[in-house]
Amino acid sequence: MKTKKFLLPESEIPTDFFNIQAIMPNKPVPILNPGTREPMKAEDLYPIFCEECARQEMDTVHEYIPIPEEVREKYAFYRCTPLVRAYGLEKALDTPAHIYFKNESVSPAGSHKLNSAIAQAYYCKQQGITNITTETGAGQWGGALSYAASMFGLDCAVYMVKVSYEQKPYRRTIMGVFGSTPIASPSMSTRAGKDIITANPTDSGSLGTAISEAIELAINTPNCKYTLGSVLNHVCLHQTVIGQEAKKQMEMAGEEPDIVIACFGGGSNFSGIAFPFMRDKILNGSKTRFIAAEPQSCPKLTRGKFEYDFGDVAGYTPLLGMYTLGHKFHPANIHAGGLRYHGSGTLVAQLMKDGYMEAMDVAQTESFKAGVLFARTEGIIPAPESCHAIAATIREAEKCKVSGEQKTILFNLSGHGFIDMGAYAQYLDGDITDYVPSDAEIQKFIADADALNK
Amino acid sequence: MKTKKFLLPESEIPTDFFNIQAIMPNKPVPILNPGTREPMKAEDLYPIFCEECARQEMDTVHEYIPIPEEVREKYAFYRCTPLVRAYGLEKALDTPAHIYFKNESVSPAGSHKLNSAIAQAYYCKQQGITNITTETGAGQWGGALSYAASMFGLDCAVYMVKVSYEQKPYRRTIMGVFGSTPIASPSMSTRAGKDIITANPTDSGSLGTAISEAIELAINTPNCKYTLGSVLNHVCLHQTVIGQEAKKQMEMAGEEPDIVIACFGGGSNFSGIAFPFMRDKILNGSKTRFIAAEPQSCPKLTRGKFEYDFGDVAGYTPLLGMYTLGHKFHPANIHAGGLRYHGSGTLVAQLMKDGYMEAMDVAQTESFKAGVLFARTEGIIPAPESCHAIAATIREAEKCKVSGEQKTILFNLSGHGFIDMGAYAQYLDGDITDYVPSDAEIQKFIADADALNK
Repeated sequence: MKTKKFLLPESEIPTDFFNIQAIMPNKPVPILNPGTREPMKAEDLYPIFCEECARQEMDTVHEYIPIPEEVREKYAFYRCTPLVRAYGLEKALDTPAHIYFKNESVSPAGSHKLNSAIAQAYYCKQQGITNITTETGAGQWGGALSYAASMFGLDCAVYMVKVSYEQKPYRRTIMGVFGSTPIASPSMSTRAGKDIITANPTDSGSLGTAISEAIELAINTPNCKYTLGSVLNHVCLHQTVIGQEAKKQMEMAGEEPDIVIACFGGGSNFSGIAFPFMRDKILNGSKTRFIAAEPQSCPKLTRGKFEYDFGDVAGYTPLLGMYTLGHKFHPANIHAGGLRYHGSGTLVAQLMKDGYMEAMDVAQTESFKAGVLFARTEGIIPAPESCHAIAATIREAEKCKVSGEQKTILFNLSGHGFIDMGAYAQYLDGDITDYVPSDAEIQKFIADADALNK
Repeated sequence: MKTKKFLLPESEIPTDFFNIQAIMPNKPVPILNPGTREPMKAEDLYPIFCEECARQEMDTVHEYIPIPEEVREKYAFYRCTPLVRAYGLEKALDTPAHIYFKNESVSPAGSHKLNSAIAQAYYCKQQGITNITTETGAGQWGGALSYAASMFGLDCAVYMVKVSYEQKPYRRTIMGVFGSTPIASPSMSTRAGKDIITANPTDSGSLGTAISEAIELAINTPNCKYTLGSVLNHVCLHQTVIGQEAKKQMEMAGEEPDIVIACFGGGSNFSGIAFPFMRDKILNGSKTRFIAAEPQSCPKLTRGKFEYDFGDVAGYTPLLGMYTLGHKFHPANIHAGGLRYHGSGTLVAQLMKDGYMEAMDVAQTESFKAGVLFARTEGIIPAPESCHAIAATIREAEKCKVSGEQKTILFNLSGHGFIDMGAYAQYLDGDITDYVPSDAEIQKFIADADALNK
């Protein structure tokens, strides 16, 4: 019998986070204070984030940062996750490519998000914080943080993008089961939310807006810190447990990936699977390609601009170097809510600029078509976000069929789609639409960001 | 770090099904032809079931039946499943008991049901069958069979109990993703369905009715066979991969279970986890206790009668020896749809009668309370069915707290609850009710069964 799943015991859960900042040829551009335009120090972030996360955010020195034992113990609830050979998908595509996926969907929260949620909740707890808050798009991060907060006895308030709040009631219930209550964003509970609702009472929300609201709550609430599920350096750092395990598992399989693929929202699952492999490219010049699969409707890497911008709609965050569509760009209401974000994280932006990786945009219909094929051949119904990675994988595998090359492709299955069956029902009914923003629309919002860079 | 999960590689997927019939001191009572009252032979079942399953149903000779390599290959998509030590639950209960669970929820279909679905689909395919049909309650069996049918290229029609069809639209979509279309039962597509709708247009359906419809379709459709997700001997046989793995994993953990617990609908997940351990009780007199946790609203083992009865409402099946509430007993619309069945399988019935196992009934509210505690301490949101096993486990663990005994409890987490979040939402809103059938109601329906035994 051919081996389908490559498993590692709990003793192989990584002992350190891999900090790519320490080895990047060009360091990420510094975070700027929007008032002074001066680079910020870790201490400047303490009002918003817990201190350890703020320090990790700025750490360009330590290549490896030890993972606390209590965090590894919580990881053991689901890690190490399996690496799986997608024989079924390969057969259906009739491709000579070897396709592997790292199955992060086995996490109890249903996605990779828990990797950083556990770490952030732990660091908050260690600092004596009692309340945490955040935003969530599709609800995966909110569910993961609720779970992590419950594990460490923290109170948790989640601002959930309104369109997802309405599309995905079960996600709300998941947070409720874990003891937290999500709030639809924009809400009337913050200044930022009130302003948006006043301007447009039917605003369907966005990750950018929800971030504004959560930051406002954190700043105004005693003993409360904000946590973020993607974009920032320390979040990408925590996710590197994925790629570190995958490296060992690819060795077990006796192969090295020619191409590593992940879907792309803010960059956390992409960084998680890619960075540990990218280390070989930076240090040893390996030829591995890294592909970020982003939605056609929110194409920051393929059509955005590398410059400073805010991380949120209201402009509460510091200025971050990113590929951006402009912080006021309003992504279409695609089902892959976790990919509806205007900018990329700073680390990925720099690595993209420096040619270590590439990006590909995927139409919503193509993503669901890929997801259904994957479900029928590999049995797992993928999250709409993950469907984008699968679509990119299929494109590359089909190129191999044409060229006859037997490439090895590894993608990250960031989450399952059991909570997104409403989206699949729409797809099966032919009710899924594609959205392509016009050049004029993109230029209009990028002009806002340009103004910040003068 | 204490080991949380005990993992086995794919090479340890069992090579044989364990057939408890071969070692039972009292063999299960034979299946009877309802017309002649004569014991049926395997060949008599060929019009309904594929031949290999019919033979397995009657096999009282072979203790082990080899698992075809192609079935083991499909099992490798998710097996071996983890055995997990529930440290979080133990801590929350402050119990000296050691609690373990076998995590069948990692199956791509979300429950243990896939173990038999794959085997049955394979045996049908081998026989040249092109179409399969079945019934489903909560939708877990229907989803699993749709997936298995898709893997082996079979067409699949699923009769889904109407109340679940309406409560769980996402389950229908899952079947759709796997390429099959569920039909709400009772339906107008069969004689049995028409008769019930005519008598009561608002009938909410039951497993018994859906079975009648599926059997009718199988008998009237060329090259079509019926498959069942529980109750029958061959289904319980296929599920023994669960307990065989769990035995090895408990050895890895250095413990032996004092108590083995599973929720109970028709008996498949109970048999799966229990039978391989019960072998030691039958052959070597081990003291292990086996507890079937059934819903208070459908208490066939705790309040039913051991006698011959039909397996379905319309009386299409042969007569089966079972603990029964009467085949016309209509279970309340609890969320644990998979437990809404009037009778137990023949094997379990005999083992219950012979004192090898016991049963416990669990109220719906108690089950959800247990499920939420489990989610908050172990991270996994359990299926409403599995919540019954957790509730029984908690009862036993609390007894240990009182007595100070450090017992080892193993339960089967038969499935996850991601598709049942509507039920959890109701529970969190305080909208869950308990149903206790009156003695008069139970006696009335058992009287129908009594009449068949004269």
